[in-house]
Amino acid sequence: MATELLDESAKGVYVIAATPFTETGAVDFDSVDSLTEFYIDQGVHGMTVLGVMGEAPKLTDSEQTELMQRYLRRIDGRVPVLVGVSNPGIDNLASLSKASMDAGAAGVMIAGISGLKTDEQILGYFDKVMAKLDDATPVCLQDYPPTTTVYFSNGVINKLITDHPRIKMFKHEDCPGHRKLTALRNAPETQGVRRVSILTGNGGLYVPQELKRGADGIMTGFAFIGALVQVYELFKAGKVDEAEDLFDLYLPVIRHEQQIGFGLALRKETLRRFGALSCPLARAPGPAMDGDDIKELDGLFARLREKLQSSGQPVPNGI
Amino acid sequence: MATELLDESAKGVYVIAATPFTETGAVDFDSVDSLTEFYIDQGVHGMTVLGVMGEAPKLTDSEQTELMQRYLRRIDGRVPVLVGVSNPGIDNLASLSKASMDAGAAGVMIAGISGLKTDEQILGYFDKVMAKLDDATPVCLQDYPPTTTVYFSNGVINKLITDHPRIKMFKHEDCPGHRKLTALRNAPETQGVRRVSILTGNGGLYVPQELKRGADGIMTGFAFIGALVQVYELFKAGKVDEAEDLFDLYLPVIRHEQQIGFGLALRKETLRRFGALSCPLARAPGPAMDGDDIKELDGLFARLREKLQSSGQPVPNGI
Amino acid sequence: MATELLDESAKGVYVIAATPFTETGAVDFDSVDSLTEFYIDQGVHGMTVLGVMGEAPKLTDSEQTELMQRYLRRIDGRVPVLVGVSNPGIDNLASLSKASMDAGAAGVMIAGISGLKTDEQILGYFDKVMAKLDDATPVCLQDYPPTTTVYFSNGVINKLITDHPRIKMFKHEDCPGHRKLTALRNAPETQGVRRVSILTGNGGLYVPQELKRGADGIMTGFAFIGALVQVYELFKAGKVDEAEDLFDLYLPVIRHEQQIGFGLALRKETLRRFGALSCPLARAPGPAMDGDDIKELDGLFARLREKLQSSGQPVPNGI
Amino acid sequence: MATELLDESAKGVYVIAATPFTETGAVDFDSVDSLTEFYIDQGVHGMTVLGVMGEAPKLTDSEQTELMQRYLRRIDGRVPVLVGVSNPGIDNLASLSKASMDAGAAGVMIAGISGLKTDEQILGYFDKVMAKLDDATPVCLQDYPPTTTVYFSNGVINKLITDHPRIKMFKHEDCPGHRKLTALRNAPETQGVRRVSILTGNGGLYVPQELKRGADGIMTGFAFIGALVQVYELFKAGKVDEAEDLFDLYLPVIRHEQQIGFGLALRKETLRRFGALSCPLARAPGPAMDGDDIKELDGLFARLREKLQSSGQPVPNGI
Repeated sequence: MATELLDESAKGVYVIAATPFTETGAVDFDSVDSLTEFYIDQGVHGMTVLGVMGEAPKLTDSEQTELMQRYLRRIDGRVPVLVGVSNPGIDNLASLSKASMDAGAAGVMIAGISGLKTDEQILGYFDKVMAKLDDATPVCLQDYPPTTTVYFSNGVINKLITDHPRIKMFKHEDCPGHRKLTALRNAPETQGVRRVSILTGNGGLYVPQELKRGADGIMTGFAFIGALVQVYELFKAGKVDEAEDLFDLYLPVIRHEQQIGFGLALRKETLRRFGALSCPLARAPGPAMDGDDIKELDGLFARLREKLQSSGQPVPNGI
Repeated sequence: MATELLDESAKGVYVIAATPFTETGAVDFDSVDSLTEFYIDQGVHGMTVLGVMGEAPKLTDSEQTELMQRYLRRIDGRVPVLVGVSNPGIDNLASLSKASMDAGAAGVMIAGISGLKTDEQILGYFDKVMAKLDDATPVCLQDYPPTTTVYFSNGVINKLITDHPRIKMFKHEDCPGHRKLTALRNAPETQGVRRVSILTGNGGLYVPQELKRGADGIMTGFAFIGALVQVYELFKAGKVDEAEDLFDLYLPVIRHEQQIGFGLALRKETLRRFGALSCPLARAPGPAMDGDDIKELDGLFARLREKLQSSGQPVPNGI
Repeated sequence: MATELLDESAKGVYVIAATPFTETGAVDFDSVDSLTEFYIDQGVHGMTVLGVMGEAPKLTDSEQTELMQRYLRRIDGRVPVLVGVSNPGIDNLASLSKASMDAGAAGVMIAGISGLKTDEQILGYFDKVMAKLDDATPVCLQDYPPTTTVYFSNGVINKLITDHPRIKMFKHEDCPGHRKLTALRNAPETQGVRRVSILTGNGGLYVPQELKRGADGIMTGFAFIGALVQVYELFKAGKVDEAEDLFDLYLPVIRHEQQIGFGLALRKETLRRFGALSCPLARAPGPAMDGDDIKELDGLFARLREKLQSSGQPVPNGI
Repeated sequence: MATELLDESAKGVYVIAATPFTETGAVDFDSVDSLTEFYIDQGVHGMTVLGVMGEAPKLTDSEQTELMQRYLRRIDGRVPVLVGVSNPGIDNLASLSKASMDAGAAGVMIAGISGLKTDEQILGYFDKVMAKLDDATPVCLQDYPPTTTVYFSNGVINKLITDHPRIKMFKHEDCPGHRKLTALRNAPETQGVRRVSILTGNGGLYVPQELKRGADGIMTGFAFIGALVQVYELFKAGKVDEAEDLFDLYLPVIRHEQQIGFGLALRKETLRRFGALSCPLARAPGPAMDGDDIKELDGLFARLREKLQSSGQPVPNGI
C-alpha cells in the first residue's frame, strides 16, 4: 500500500532508519523487517531510509534499491517514508527518486553536494536537480553542513522553496541554528514565502528549543526514538514542561549519541539491545565500539534506567 | 606574586577567562578585576587568558599584553594562569610568551595554525615554535580541530610530549574524542610516554565520561564554572554518582552554551547576570543575542533554578 | 588478452581516459572505442579508466563495470590499464577491483576518502582496504589533496609502501609537491624503502621539473597526450632541452586545461575536435563551455598551431 | 606627498610588495627602500603593501604600521599604494585603515575572514566593516578563496559594489575564474552595476586571457614584474600577439612561482638576485628553498635568459 505523498503539513517524529548488516557485511533484510516493526511500535510519524545514518553511500546501487523496496514493502503505508537520494551524479539521483516513488515513497530527501560554495552555485545545482525529477515527486531539502560542507543561507532556502513548489519539507541541521530556524519559520509571515514543514536534526540535542521556535517535528536516528515521540506528543498537548522534563532525562544519552560519526556505532548497538536488529556492525569504513565504549554505554544506561524509574517513566526494554 | 610554574601534576578546573569590553568596544579593565574575583570565588583551580573564548585574535598586540598583565596582577598568584599565545607568526608567539612569563604566568597554551595537514607538518611546526621559546616556559598543547583545522593524532601528541619536555599539559578538545583520551591517558603505561596533565574542553559537554576515562580536569569557558568545580570535587572525593547527578542538572545549559561561536554571546550575557562583567558585548565580528535568544535563555535558567532548588542544590545568584 | 600486471618498473605516460557520453547523457560506448584508438595512436604507455577525470562517481555501479570492461576489451592488452576503484564503501571498492582484475586490468588505483585527517587514520583506512583486496591485485596509491582533502605525508606514503607490497605505483599530485617528489624518489636510498614507480599529475604543469627530480612518468588527462609522450621520449633519450622546448610550446594550453573542475570541459571539447569522441558533454553536474570559452580556446589553439609550425613540430589534426 | 585616492579608473600593474627581513628576522627597512626603487624602476602602476605575499599576519601591529609608513614615505606619491588591512578584528582593521590613509595611501584592500560561508554572512560582514571605515577611504575588495576560504559569488560582489560606493576596485583571484571575470566585467552593461576597476591575481598565470576578458590590469607579487608591465603595455597598445608572445616566454617561470605558499620563497630569492632586497628569508613559519630548489631555479633562469636573448628581448639583470 502506498502512503500519501509528502506535503507541507508533515509533522511529528521521522526516524532515520538504520541499515542493518550481517556479520559478513551483507545487508540484513530480516533485520530490516524487525527494525521496521520496532520503529512503528515506537510510534514514529514517518521514516527516512538511505540517509547519512543509513550508510547509503556504502551500498551499491542495487543494494540501495533493494533496501528501499524492502523497507517500503514492510512499512506498507503505515507511515510516510522519505528516501535519501543524494548522489554525486544527478542522473543517479533521478533514477533512485523514480524507483522510490514507484515503490511507494512519500517523497525524497536531497542535500547539496561537496563543492557548492556560493548561493548562486547552490541555486544552480538544485535547478539542475529539479529539472531531472518528476514534477510529482515531493522533496525534503536537507541542510547538513558538517557532512555536506554546503551552507544554505535563509535567502537560498526561501528562494528554493519559492522556485520549486515540490519542496515540501526542510530538514534543519545547521548548528548553531536556532536563529536560522526562527527566521525560516517566520518567513511565510515576514516575507510571504510558502510555508513548508520543518523538521530538525542534530541528533535531537535541541528538541525543546526547536519546538518552541516553531519546528514541526524532528528527524533523527536517535535510538530511543520513542522517547522523542513522547516528548513531541506532550509538547503538542501543551504540556511543555512535562515534555522538557522527559527530554532532560534522556539528554545525557542524546548528548552521548550525538558524537558525529561515532554515534552510528552507539545507535546500532542500542538498537541491537532493543532487539530491533541482529548485528550492530557498520559497514567499512565505519565506527566500532571497544570495551571502554561498551562499559561507558552500560553506565549511561544504568543511570537512565534509574532516573526513569524514579520519575515514574517507562523504561525501554533491553537497555 | 608569581605563581608556581605549570607542571605535569596540574589538575582541576581551569576557566577560560572572557575578555570584557565596554559598550564602545574598548577593553573593560574594571571588569577584568570583577571577573577575576568571580572566577576565584567560584573555586577554579586555574585560569586561562587570551584563549579563543577570550577573543584574543581581535585584540591588538598591546591590548593582548595589557590584558594579560592586568589579569595576572589581579590574580596575584592565587591560582596558576595560562596565557594563550597562538599566532600566525612564531616571533609574535615567542614575544607574547616571554612577556607572559615575565608577568608571572604559569605557562603558555599553544595550538596548531591553519595549513598544518600532516603529522610531519605538525611536528615541524612545533619544532620551530619550541626553538624560539625559552626553555623554562611550560607549555599546554591545545587540540581544538573545529577552530584550528589542525588534527593531532595520538602518535603526534605523544611524540611532541617526548620531544619537548616543556609540554606539561594537553588540552583535549577533539570530538568525538573519548577513545583518543583513553589512549593518551594510558600512553605512559602502554608506551612509556611521559605523563602530562590532560584537561578537557568541548564546553564541558562530556565531563563525567572524561573524568572516568582519566582526565585530570577541565578547561572551559562555561559560565557556571562553579558547578563544574563542584562536579570535579565530588568526583575526586569518590562521589561519582553525586557528581554526575549534579552535572546532569546543568546539562541542558551546558549543551545550550556549547553552540560553537554563538556560545560566546551566551556566556558573556550569563557572566553579566552574575555581575561578573558590565557589558556582554563581543568585539566585532562577534555573536550577539536577539530577543528570542534572551527569552530562550530566561526559560532555560528558570528551569535550572527550579531543578536546583528541588534537588537541594544552591542556585547561583543572578540567573 | 590480459596485460601483464603492474609492477614497480612501470613508466611512461599513462593517460587518464575520459568517459564519453551521448547528447542524452548515456555512456557512449562507440566513443570508448574511438578514444581507445586515439590514445593508443598517441603512443601512451598505459591508461587509467574511471579516474576523477573519468567522472566515475557519476556512473552507476553497473555503468562503471561495463565501461571498464569495454575499455579493457578494446585495448586488448596493447597497454596496461589501471582502474580507479575509490569508493565510500570498502566492499564496493573491493568488488570493482575484483571485476577489474578479472577483466584484465593491470592494477587498481586507490585514493583516500574524505574524513581521513591524521596519519593514523590514513594508515588505518588502507589497512582495512588492503585486507579486503586480493593479494595479487597491484595497487597505485593516488595522492590528490585538492579533490580528496586527504594529505599524505612522505612518512605515510613510505609506510604504506613498506606495509603493503602490492603497492607498485604512487600517483603524485600534491601541489606544491616538488620537494615531496624528490624525497619520495630518494627514499629507497635514504631510508631503504622499496622503490615503486612514481607518476605525476597536476595536468602535466610541471613535467620537466618532475622528470628531472626522478619521476618515472606522467599520469594525466591532458588532451594533447601525444605531446607529453614526445616530451617524455625526448627526455628519456637524453634530449632534455629539446624535451623542455617542446613542453614549453604546449605550456599555454597545459596551463589553460589545468583549471580544476572546468578543465574537464576543455579536454572533452578538445578530444571532440580530434575526432576521438562524438559529444563533449560532461554528465550533470559538470562543467560546460560557453561562447567566450570557445573563442578563447580557438585563440589558444591558433597560437599553438602557429608556434608548432614555426618550430617545425607536427600540428595535431583537428585543432 | 600623498597620492591621489583610488578610484574606479585604476588600471595597470600593481605589484604586491614583499616584506623584507634581515637574517635575524627583523623587518629590513633598508631593503624596503631598495625594493621600492626596484618596483618603481620596473614601471609598476601601483603597489600593494601588507598583502598575503607581504607576510602581514606575521608582523606585529606596530611593525605593520611602521612598514606601511616606510613604504609610503619612500614611494612618495610616485605611484598609488594600497594597504592590505584584513584582520580577525574589525576594530584593528579600521585603525590600520585610518593610519594608512593618514600616511598617504590611495586606499585599502580587504578580504573576507575565515568562517564566512553564505552570501548573507559575507554581506553582513562587509556591512559591519564599512560602518567602521571612514567614508573617504577607497576600498579594493579582495577575492582569494584558496587562502581565505571565503567564496564570493558575482551576486555578492555586485551587491557589495552597489551598497558600498567606496569600493573602487575588485581583486579577482578565484580559480577557475574566467567566466566569473567576464560576467563581472559585463555587469555594468547587463545589470547596471557601477563599473569598478578589476585587477587579476593568480600569480599572473592567465594574464592574456584575463586582459582579453576585460580586466583593467594585474595585481600580483610575481618577481619579474617588469615583464608583466611590458605585457600590459603591449596589450594596451593593441599589440596583442606581441604581448602574448612575451608572456609565453615568461610562462615557465610564472607557472613555477605560482606554487601557492612555496612561491614566496622563490620570489624573495629572485628579488635578492635582482638586488632588490638583501636577505630572501621569510618569517617563520614560512617556506625556504633547499639545494634542489636552487638548482631547479637556476635551470629555469638559464632557459629564460636564452629564450629572451634569442627573441631579442631584454634580459633582467641578476638572474
